[in-house]
Amino acid sequence: MTTNIQLIQEKLVQATAILNELDIDLWLTFVRETSMQPDPVLDLIAGVDVTWQSAFLLSRTGQHTAIIGHFDAENVQALGAYQVIGYHEGIRQPLREAIAAYQPTTLAINYSENDVAADGLSHGMYLALLDHLRDTPFAACLVSAEKIVAALRGRKSATEIELVRQAVNTTEQLFDAVEQFAKPGMTQRQIADFVHQRVDAMGFGYAWPKPFNPIVTCGPHSAVGHAAPGDVVLQKGHLLHMDLGIRQDEYCSDLQRMWYVLDDGETTAPPEVQRAFDVVYGAIKAGEYRLKSGVPGWQVDETAREFIVDNGYPEYMHAFGHLLGRSAHDGATVLGPRWERYTGICDLLVEAGNIFTLELHVIVPERGMMSLEEDVLVTKNGVEYLSVPQTELRYIRP
Amino acid sequence: MTTNIQLIQEKLVQATAILNELDIDLWLTFVRETSMQPDPVLDLIAGVDVTWQSAFLLSRTGQHTAIIGHFDAENVQALGAYQVIGYHEGIRQPLREAIAAYQPTTLAINYSENDVAADGLSHGMYLALLDHLRDTPFAACLVSAEKIVAALRGRKSATEIELVRQAVNTTEQLFDAVEQFAKPGMTQRQIADFVHQRVDAMGFGYAWPKPFNPIVTCGPHSAVGHAAPGDVVLQKGHLLHMDLGIRQDEYCSDLQRMWYVLDDGETTAPPEVQRAFDVVYGAIKAGEYRLKSGVPGWQVDETAREFIVDNGYPEYMHAFGHLLGRSAHDGATVLGPRWERYTGICDLLVEAGNIFTLELHVIVPERGMMSLEEDVLVTKNGVEYLSVPQTELRYIRP
Repeated sequence: MTTNIQLIQEKLVQATAILNELDIDLWLTFVRETSMQPDPVLDLIAGVDVTWQSAFLLSRTGQHTAIIGHFDAENVQALGAYQVIGYHEGIRQPLREAIAAYQPTTLAINYSENDVAADGLSHGMYLALLDHLRDTPFAACLVSAEKIVAALRGRKSATEIELVRQAVNTTEQLFDAVEQFAKPGMTQRQIADFVHQRVDAMGFGYAWPKPFNPIVTCGPHSAVGHAAPGDVVLQKGHLLHMDLGIRQDEYCSDLQRMWYVLDDGETTAPPEVQRAFDVVYGAIKAGEYRLKSGVPGWQVDETAREFIVDNGYPEYMHAFGHLLGRSAHDGATVLGPRWERYTGICDLLVEAGNIFTLELHVIVPERGMMSLEEDVLVTKNGVEYLSVPQTELRYIRP
Repeated sequence: MTTNIQLIQEKLVQATAILNELDIDLWLTFVRETSMQPDPVLDLIAGVDVTWQSAFLLSRTGQHTAIIGHFDAENVQALGAYQVIGYHEGIRQPLREAIAAYQPTTLAINYSENDVAADGLSHGMYLALLDHLRDTPFAACLVSAEKIVAALRGRKSATEIELVRQAVNTTEQLFDAVEQFAKPGMTQRQIADFVHQRVDAMGFGYAWPKPFNPIVTCGPHSAVGHAAPGDVVLQKGHLLHMDLGIRQDEYCSDLQRMWYVLDDGETTAPPEVQRAFDVVYGAIKAGEYRLKSGVPGWQVDETAREFIVDNGYPEYMHAFGHLLGRSAHDGATVLGPRWERYTGICDLLVEAGNIFTLELHVIVPERGMMSLEEDVLVTKNGVEYLSVPQTELRYIRP
């Protein structure tokens, strides 16, 4: 974990404002052994790893306290944002005292059924916390921090927006390099290896695990979805699809691009391929027009989904978009249909400062998958593309 | 996450035996978005990442079922170990049916107050699970899987032992290189950078986060503990200490080594430095003799701790040893004192197949920290060193 102190200071300023907005007195992030069991919140508010049970208390007054094992104290002290209490034998007593000093009537903790980014408190640590707070009034003050986390993670600060933009730019350069490199006869694995060499040489990471990143789909015989690149060979007359997300300075991109491999004698793609591109591109534009601050996520998905179905293709079996930032799936709000698995997150409202992916696909029989994905920032007035959108089918020329 | 199918098959065989040993019918690992919220158990039983809510059911009959989002199905199918059910809209119904098919009277889930490696179920996911199981008899069958996880993670399989041994060997070669490289006048950071270049060039990772790995302590003016290497300069007449753990093929080392920087005219270390080495080395040996299958962890710590105190040094404020494997702190049993923060994990019994670190330090006034750490395997008959123990103080010759 690399600590960007400016970024953490921006997020702590946001956090204080959000606590006041939500009328919550105190917010506790309670963690241990974070290299094995990370809480996604800790990246935003401290950017350090800790070993023993540790408590990060953020208050609506802007005063913050960290209670951590004495070994880890210096790293948190270096942030200059917390009153740091380093303990030796046990956290219980200093934790009770620190909470009491704030006299909170609401104490938010990181659990959420619907938002993984707000659900960093393990069940065992929840039980440990109840035990620490036994016979205090604070055990009765516990509430979910999911709204705090959704706002804090979702509203990108100025530094965060620039970091995503940078990762997107790098990814677009990688796509350009792939276009030069890829030729019929290569396997998915060869194309993925080429990307890995470039990303590794630049010292960047991956927005999701490297064995499945990039996803490379060659023609109609590749598995669709989160499968590792295999031995399927790129052929003339087939579609080449790549889904790539890098992590650069801790922030991520997540983009999909499409190429058609021209067959002998062809100068453009066949009509059914071109039509599939046009419909996918059109659906993304339709969704983009619907994407506005204040709109529930499912409405954006619905617009894109109806566009696909109205044009005679089967609907895609996933969400139209997700938040993007420190992770490829960066928290709560999802631009997804009102299915069971999107319960509670597809009806959250889009906010200014959110960065979303917009993505969907259709299948072109005997040609392959046609799938695009763009990364966009929601502004006060509309949408700003962080990627240069793919408006035309790209070609691999044998 | 790299999937080592042989390793997973070894662990699944162990898991079936452990379920029978503990008289538990069914063990559920219930996860989502594991690249943001990993459950440490998943590495052992599947070695894949999943996106949507996913359930891995292991039964005492050796029949296993995985219920996962259809996108991720192929990766789990490839393991050949699970009946895979890929779902589209929601996990509830297939989960209820799959559990019902096993007719369990006990259903273990991954939560633990004391063992982070057995506590991968978040509180929000616990609530979601209760909701999925509502109005079934299974909600009343839930028990903690902590004993399963402690046994499964703690008892290293043959492949796991070889992987730790390999990481330890690599680390020892790095120490030899450091000994050639380090000279008075260098900063902690320069020495750490040297190690990073070597580790990165070999394509290996770090057993704990890179900014704090290795820990480099130069003389008496470095911070003690988990601090990042800074600008303290190595000087003649001072101690150089390094705490380094690498991750090679997903398995870790964790070793500490000591050098004394000879001052002008010296051919050996001063007596107080040599004595500190002898006492630290002696304490590790004393602890090693106490380390046996069936002994509670705190007794091993007590032996080493008493040795230090009996020799006139203050006791160390941490545990004498921890498990090592996929992580530097690899789960339950700790060789630690009976302090609040080691509650429930320092009284667990040492088992054959456990790999432990043995580590402690004393301070030598005006010279620096004297701290050693070895990695050992508990066998049926005693202890086997995976590291070549440091039996003599090493020297940096200006």
